[in-house]
Amino acid sequence: MFEAEIKISLKKTVADPQGLTIKHALESLDFKGLNEVRMGKLVRIRLEAQDQAQAQDEVKQMCEKLLANQIIEDFSFKVEQL
Amino acid sequence: MFEAEIKISLKKTVADPQGLTIKHALESLDFKGLNEVRMGKLVRIRLEAQDQAQAQDEVKQMCEKLLANQIIEDFSFKVEQL
Repeated sequence: MFEAEIKISLKKTVADPQGLTIKHALESLDFKGLNEVRMGKLVRIRLEAQDQAQAQDEVKQMCEKLLANQIIEDFSFKVEQL
Repeated sequence: MFEAEIKISLKKTVADPQGLTIKHALESLDFKGLNEVRMGKLVRIRLEAQDQAQAQDEVKQMCEKLLANQIIEDFSFKVEQL
């Protein structure tokens, strides 16, 4: 069994209104010195695979085919054997 | 300047319909051997702080006061100096 932790975030050039809203909310709670807030997604997947390489490959394909919209999002992941 | 990467995920005992939907979608794309898919949030915050300890403390408070709903969510974060 393997566990993948996938981080999906908006590309730097893409506006992030959700992040901006959270930044304003934090500022209204009196947090100071905030420079930027960016929201992303975190997906944890447990899967069966023959080995680490196969698990890595499957997860990469999942990101490319479904999880990330590569026009506006970047993804990175790590896979661990459980 | 510090950058915090905050991971917010549903507690293990909380049902995750969004994760389940993604699991079904992946299966319909012919990915096999999926055991569990859980969705979470990833927040990246850039902030000014006097030192690492102050940055850590601020980010912890942000999580507790706004970012995470601790009844159903767990959070973890790491802070790096830029």
